[in-house]
Amino acid sequence: MPDRLAEIRYEVALASRMLANEGVLDAFGHVSVRHPEDPGRYLLPRSRSPQLIEPADVLEYTLDSEPVKSPKEKLFAERVIHGCIYEARPDVMAVCHHHAAAVLPFCIAGVPIVPVFHLGAAIGENIPFWDQHDEFGDTNLLVVKPEEGRSLARAIGSHPAVLMNHHGATVVGKDLPELVSRSIFMCDNAKYQLQAHMLGKVVPLSSGETKLAGTINALPNVVGRTWEYWSMRVEQAGMLPPGKSRGSARRPKAGKRKA
Amino acid sequence: MPDRLAEIRYEVALASRMLANEGVLDAFGHVSVRHPEDPGRYLLPRSRSPQLIEPADVLEYTLDSEPVKSPKEKLFAERVIHGCIYEARPDVMAVCHHHAAAVLPFCIAGVPIVPVFHLGAAIGENIPFWDQHDEFGDTNLLVVKPEEGRSLARAIGSHPAVLMNHHGATVVGKDLPELVSRSIFMCDNAKYQLQAHMLGKVVPLSSGETKLAGTINALPNVVGRTWEYWSMRVEQAGMLPPGKSRGSARRPKAGKRKA
Amino acid sequence: MPDRLAEIRYEVALASRMLANEGVLDAFGHVSVRHPEDPGRYLLPRSRSPQLIEPADVLEYTLDSEPVKSPKEKLFAERVIHGCIYEARPDVMAVCHHHAAAVLPFCIAGVPIVPVFHLGAAIGENIPFWDQHDEFGDTNLLVVKPEEGRSLARAIGSHPAVLMNHHGATVVGKDLPELVSRSIFMCDNAKYQLQAHMLGKVVPLSSGETKLAGTINALPNVVGRTWEYWSMRVEQAGMLPPGKSRGSARRPKAGKRKA
Amino acid sequence: MPDRLAEIRYEVALASRMLANEGVLDAFGHVSVRHPEDPGRYLLPRSRSPQLIEPADVLEYTLDSEPVKSPKEKLFAERVIHGCIYEARPDVMAVCHHHAAAVLPFCIAGVPIVPVFHLGAAIGENIPFWDQHDEFGDTNLLVVKPEEGRSLARAIGSHPAVLMNHHGATVVGKDLPELVSRSIFMCDNAKYQLQAHMLGKVVPLSSGETKLAGTINALPNVVGRTWEYWSMRVEQAGMLPPGKSRGSARRPKAGKRKA
Repeated sequence: MPDRLAEIRYEVALASRMLANEGVLDAFGHVSVRHPEDPGRYLLPRSRSPQLIEPADVLEYTLDSEPVKSPKEKLFAERVIHGCIYEARPDVMAVCHHHAAAVLPFCIAGVPIVPVFHLGAAIGENIPFWDQHDEFGDTNLLVVKPEEGRSLARAIGSHPAVLMNHHGATVVGKDLPELVSRSIFMCDNAKYQLQAHMLGKVVPLSSGETKLAGTINALPNVVGRTWEYWSMRVEQAGMLPPGKSRGSARRPKAGKRKA
Repeated sequence: MPDRLAEIRYEVALASRMLANEGVLDAFGHVSVRHPEDPGRYLLPRSRSPQLIEPADVLEYTLDSEPVKSPKEKLFAERVIHGCIYEARPDVMAVCHHHAAAVLPFCIAGVPIVPVFHLGAAIGENIPFWDQHDEFGDTNLLVVKPEEGRSLARAIGSHPAVLMNHHGATVVGKDLPELVSRSIFMCDNAKYQLQAHMLGKVVPLSSGETKLAGTINALPNVVGRTWEYWSMRVEQAGMLPPGKSRGSARRPKAGKRKA
Repeated sequence: MPDRLAEIRYEVALASRMLANEGVLDAFGHVSVRHPEDPGRYLLPRSRSPQLIEPADVLEYTLDSEPVKSPKEKLFAERVIHGCIYEARPDVMAVCHHHAAAVLPFCIAGVPIVPVFHLGAAIGENIPFWDQHDEFGDTNLLVVKPEEGRSLARAIGSHPAVLMNHHGATVVGKDLPELVSRSIFMCDNAKYQLQAHMLGKVVPLSSGETKLAGTINALPNVVGRTWEYWSMRVEQAGMLPPGKSRGSARRPKAGKRKA
Repeated sequence: MPDRLAEIRYEVALASRMLANEGVLDAFGHVSVRHPEDPGRYLLPRSRSPQLIEPADVLEYTLDSEPVKSPKEKLFAERVIHGCIYEARPDVMAVCHHHAAAVLPFCIAGVPIVPVFHLGAAIGENIPFWDQHDEFGDTNLLVVKPEEGRSLARAIGSHPAVLMNHHGATVVGKDLPELVSRSIFMCDNAKYQLQAHMLGKVVPLSSGETKLAGTINALPNVVGRTWEYWSMRVEQAGMLPPGKSRGSARRPKAGKRKA
């Protein structure tokens, strides 16, 4: 088990750096995974920019987003996003919260993101739009209180992602590879949708196409290829996390829940 | 002959990396060439991201897209695109399938790409638009079945390229250099067309200009210059394929068909 | 004190390079800080592109923008921007003038930039728009004369930034970290606002949200993270200033005024 | 004199690489200077992508665009652009022809580029628009025949630049530094103009402002700064030309005509 946890810490660091390298994360945003043995815990880095996360930065939390060991480091203010979604969604094994440039225009204009190309189908037929103001009035827009986290978790429902008014998005996955590819394809989808809109018309996939194409990113053929590609690009940028375990740039094992 | 095949494998790897480096390919997309001696075969890499293709990854296929030697590696699911086009188009010696960011907005809005600048004339006067849904209803949008490949080949007809609804594009060439430059200029053309549309008006080349300018990319002056330039940029990115044969960064010999 | 001044010179060089590296500055633009001991002086580099500024380039000026020691180097023509704002705004400890690509479309169209996402709230509820032509008629648009600098300082009033017609923007801060993050978030905000406009609707933050979210960038949690991130990116680009003092990539101490 | 010619060859190579590095040139486009001693000759590289030009590639031509020594290398097909403009414009000492992504949308939509920010004033109050089709009907759009070159030279008249329908732009300068900065600022201007158009309104500089701001790029303060900056960026990209003469990254001496 300790080895598996060390591997997972490395994978969280690598996934954070992949998403930063592909423009989903910047100085902000965070990636977590549910604990592989204990569904009542999750692993999330201390407060640090994703491109700098090291395996040792990855801490363990309970689902009420309290750190298991009281750490000296600063923690992410918005960790309730993770805890509340793991609480509400037993199927979710990985969570990413971000402010990607590609999705913010939609969060500002209040325009829904819809699947417009085969890989974009990973976001499902429609993504809910959560407005913190509806329930909480004027805030600083950060999701910090447990009731804010629970409200967001209710909004995401059984969807793969949620848009957050004036703020960004939160994406979930059944494991890290699905989370990473879904987050990247959702940003690609948003860019293409904006430009198709400028060309005059946005034609979404049909409901049937969305269902069928929505699983492409989980084909073994595809997961292996994308994980190798995004890893290589992090490596090419000289930004692999320290302490690379053997074979760790390969696709992580699916984070199967025991229970 | 073995030497010529080794050279071609290197050229396919280099062309894949050029197109990735210029933003035509990303984690996805693939480049093939027809076998230089046997028009009933073609060479296509195993399933891998284009920027990572090595000469040894390039496998031989029959035109029904079966590998000549049964390989251990995973294969591209969409290889029928290549086989069916080589079958239908004896003049075609190289094929590229991609999901470039520049063309996707057109594939989504259903707007045709038309030649709008001299180098863009390489795409011909109009590019057909193929909608898999017309013939096959709801699919996952991948072109996997032989009948899907044949339908796409019918759609491209005698054109240099075809747009694929909600999916991407497929481009053909009489050799690798033509394929590479046509794929890149088609993306440039799409970007400029979108922005001209935003300025208020897209004026395409006249039919006569398209015919005359359509051969610029094959001028020896131009082929030599572009191949050297895109090679240098791959090298500058530290991404040349391993096993560079002497002079291989130079323009490949035209892949002349024997028959 | 000499040590503190050396540190500040390094911080001005580093902040200049951060802002160049993040696309706020290019060949042009400049960053200054008020003298930490003497509120009647400020520190500004000699005329040089921001990405090249070294600690030794940072010179001392009086508030009428005369250099304290007559230097041999060329000086920025527009240094009155800094002097006049420090004169008018005792609360301001750092000033940046720039021509960022993100803000220029707004300076040209005469469209106000409004806060559209939580971090964008750092610019306040509305940014004044200064048209040099109103008071001075046809000029070369540079702010060179003391009366031009004073006019700009009147326009910024108590705001965190001002747009300058056909020219760029000037941003102020209570210390260097606030100045840097505000300048970057203002550019992000402008990019997102333009794209939301293209999607059909720009919904700004409410007045209450702007007030509450406007202080996020000053949270210790956030300042530490962004300063580390932007420093790392300068380092990754091989562009750290020479003569790095120990720990200087860490967040600078708040430049507290003594008086 | 031989030393001066060697220096000029280096400067042409460096200027070509600067313009490629800043996105004005790509696989195509070329930069020339008039011969410093003989106004009846000019210096232009052999046919090669600008980012690869070496001092030894720079050849001497007469104004009818014949090479002085018959070279073995391939020559640019469009060199008459240079010869015909030097013939018609004794004040012009440097010429750049390019297909920059920033100007092509304007060449396609037929929309004039107008000065919209202080540095953009370097292009003058309005840039003529040349349509090769008007005089020559359907062509491949390349400017290859002497009569095509002369027609283009008539179109540019006494202006600093000309847009070419469906093709690109040609820019002139009184020396290399003016040519380089004007070419770059013209592209910036085009980008900002397109985005201001998308925001709703393009307000150009007044005629008086254009005249006054049009000389900013020639201020010693500014020329020194921009030349150092763009050189540094070429160096940072590892792309300085071979055979750097001492001090050659510094600003070249103005190419004063003797006659």
